[in-house]
Amino acid sequence: MEKLFIGVDIGGTNVASGLVDEEGNLLQRDKRPILADVSQKTSLRQIVDGIRAVAEKEGISLKEIDGIGIGSPGPLDPFQGVAFSPVNLPTWGTVPLKRIMEEELSVPVTVDNDANVVAVGERWKGAGREVDDFLCVTLGTGIGGGAICGGRLLHGFNGNAVEIGHITVDFNGPRCGCGNYGCLELYASANAMARRTRQRIEREKPESLLTEVEQITSRTVFEAAQRGDKFALEMFQETGFFLGVGLVTAINLLNVEMVALTGGLANAGDLIFEPVRRTILERGFPGVKEKVRVIPTELGEDAALLGSAKIAIDGGVFI
Amino acid sequence: MEKLFIGVDIGGTNVASGLVDEEGNLLQRDKRPILADVSQKTSLRQIVDGIRAVAEKEGISLKEIDGIGIGSPGPLDPFQGVAFSPVNLPTWGTVPLKRIMEEELSVPVTVDNDANVVAVGERWKGAGREVDDFLCVTLGTGIGGGAICGGRLLHGFNGNAVEIGHITVDFNGPRCGCGNYGCLELYASANAMARRTRQRIEREKPESLLTEVEQITSRTVFEAAQRGDKFALEMFQETGFFLGVGLVTAINLLNVEMVALTGGLANAGDLIFEPVRRTILERGFPGVKEKVRVIPTELGEDAALLGSAKIAIDGGVFI
Repeated sequence: MEKLFIGVDIGGTNVASGLVDEEGNLLQRDKRPILADVSQKTSLRQIVDGIRAVAEKEGISLKEIDGIGIGSPGPLDPFQGVAFSPVNLPTWGTVPLKRIMEEELSVPVTVDNDANVVAVGERWKGAGREVDDFLCVTLGTGIGGGAICGGRLLHGFNGNAVEIGHITVDFNGPRCGCGNYGCLELYASANAMARRTRQRIEREKPESLLTEVEQITSRTVFEAAQRGDKFALEMFQETGFFLGVGLVTAINLLNVEMVALTGGLANAGDLIFEPVRRTILERGFPGVKEKVRVIPTELGEDAALLGSAKIAIDGGVFI
Repeated sequence: MEKLFIGVDIGGTNVASGLVDEEGNLLQRDKRPILADVSQKTSLRQIVDGIRAVAEKEGISLKEIDGIGIGSPGPLDPFQGVAFSPVNLPTWGTVPLKRIMEEELSVPVTVDNDANVVAVGERWKGAGREVDDFLCVTLGTGIGGGAICGGRLLHGFNGNAVEIGHITVDFNGPRCGCGNYGCLELYASANAMARRTRQRIEREKPESLLTEVEQITSRTVFEAAQRGDKFALEMFQETGFFLGVGLVTAINLLNVEMVALTGGLANAGDLIFEPVRRTILERGFPGVKEKVRVIPTELGEDAALLGSAKIAIDGGVFI
C-alpha cells in the first residue's frame, strides 16, 4: 500500500500542511493563520488542527499517516526535534516539538529548520533535482540557507550548518545581531537593501523616484527599478554584488554545483540574478565559477511542504 | 588475511610512502626527494620507486597490496584521479595519476588532494577521531583545508570543496591570485604575516628586534615573539584575529565541532591559538562558538600517509 506523509511549514504568520506520497505528489493542502502573540499551547493547537484537517480532506485517519515532517523557524536541534525561542514566535520559548507532536498525534515526527526543508524540497522536486551538491538561499528580511552536500542534507554537529546570512563579507563591517561583524545579511538582505537605500538618499539626495525616505522598502526599490529608475537599479546592482561576494565564499567552501535563490529579493529576477552571476564570474575559483549555475527556485511555497514531507520519508537527519 | 595499503604523500620537495594496515598502524615508511624541476616522467618514477621501496622493506610484493592512496597537491579531480598542473610541480601539466599508477603498479589507486588526506588522517587516528564534523586547516605559505561533514569527506561537485584560503574576509581587500579579493590567505598565511610585518616596519618603524626587513619571514617573527618582542607579538595577534574571522565563516557554514590547525604557523602554539580562539568567542554564533574546539593536529607528517591509506581502504571518494 502507498505510504503517506504530512509535511508542515511553520511560518511567522501561517502554518501550511500538505499530504504527500512517496513520489512527491502533493495530494491535499491546508493553510491557516498562526498567531505570533498567542500562547505556545494555542499556536501548537493551530499546527495540530492543520495536520488533522489535511488528513480529513483526504478522508483518512492519522493512523494511515507514516510520518510527519515539520519545518520550523530556528534555532532548533533537528536531532532532538526541539525549537529554541524562534524569533518570529516569541511566546514559544524552548519547545520539544517532536515529543509534543508525537504524543498528540501518535505518528513519528521529524523536525528540521525552515531553510533546510526548502532546500530538501527543491532538491527533491524542484531546481536542484539533478545535482548532489546544492545550495538553496532564502532572501527574506534576513538570509537563510540549506545545503545538500554529496546528496545529503548538511546539518553539522548541532544542526546549525549553512548560516549563510552570517558569513563575513567585511571583517571591519558593522556589528550583527548574531555577534559577528560585517555579516552577509547586513549587506544583501531585503532589509539591508532598503536601509542602504534610505541612507544614500538622505546622504546623497540622488535623482530618483524614491523620495519618501520613511516609506522605502525593498518593494518600493523594486518598483522604481522596474520603471527604470537609475538609482534604484544601482541599489539592486550593489545588493547583487554583495550577495555574489557571499556566494563566492559559500561556493569556495561547499563546491556546490547549483545555487537556487528564493524569497522576496529572488522574485526581482534579472535585477538581482544578473549582478550575482557577474560577481561569481569575476571572483569565483577558476574551474568552478564557469560551471556553477545560479537560478531561481521552482516550487514556491510547495518547497517547504515537500521538503518537510521528505525529511519524514527519509526518517529525519540521515538524508 | 590482513589487508595492506600504501599511503603516498606527494609534497613539493619530498615524496613519502607508508605501509598501513586496516587498523591504521604504520608498518613501514619511505621518504625520498622529488625534484620539482625534472620531467613529469622522472618525478613519477620517484613516486613509483618510493612505493616499491616501502613494500620491499616489509619483504612483500605489490601483489599483496590491496590499494594505494595518493595525496597530491591540487588542483585535481579526485573522482577521476587527475592532477592539473600542481603549482609546486611545474613540469607536471595534466597528469592522469590514477591511470598511470594503476598501469605501472597493477594495484587499485585512489587520489585526493593533500589537504583532504591530512583531514582524513587526523580524523581517523589523530585530533578528529571522536567527531563527525571536523575541519582541518593547513597554514603554510598558503592556507588549505579539508572537512569531514557528517562523517564523510566533503568533496563538492568537482572536488574543489574547502578552499578555505579563498573565502572572503574583506570584499574590498586586495586581489588574490585565485581571482577573488580579500581572501583569507592574503591575511592569515605565513607569507601574509611576513609581508604585513615587513610593510609595517617600513611604514611605522616600530621598536622591535625585527629590523632587517629583507630577512623577515614568519620564522623570524616567531623567534622575535618568543623573545617577548611586542611588535612581533602584535603581528601574531593580528594574524590569529584574521584566521579567527575566516574560521567563524567556515564554522557558520559547516557547523564543525572541531577545527584542527597544522602547518608552520600552527607550530607557534598559543601565539596563534589564543587570538584564534578569542576571535571565535567574540564573533561566533551563540550556541556554537562555546562548543567548537580549536586544537593542533596530532599526527604531524603521518597524517597524510594515514589519510591517503584510508582513502584507499574506503575505496576513494565515498568516505
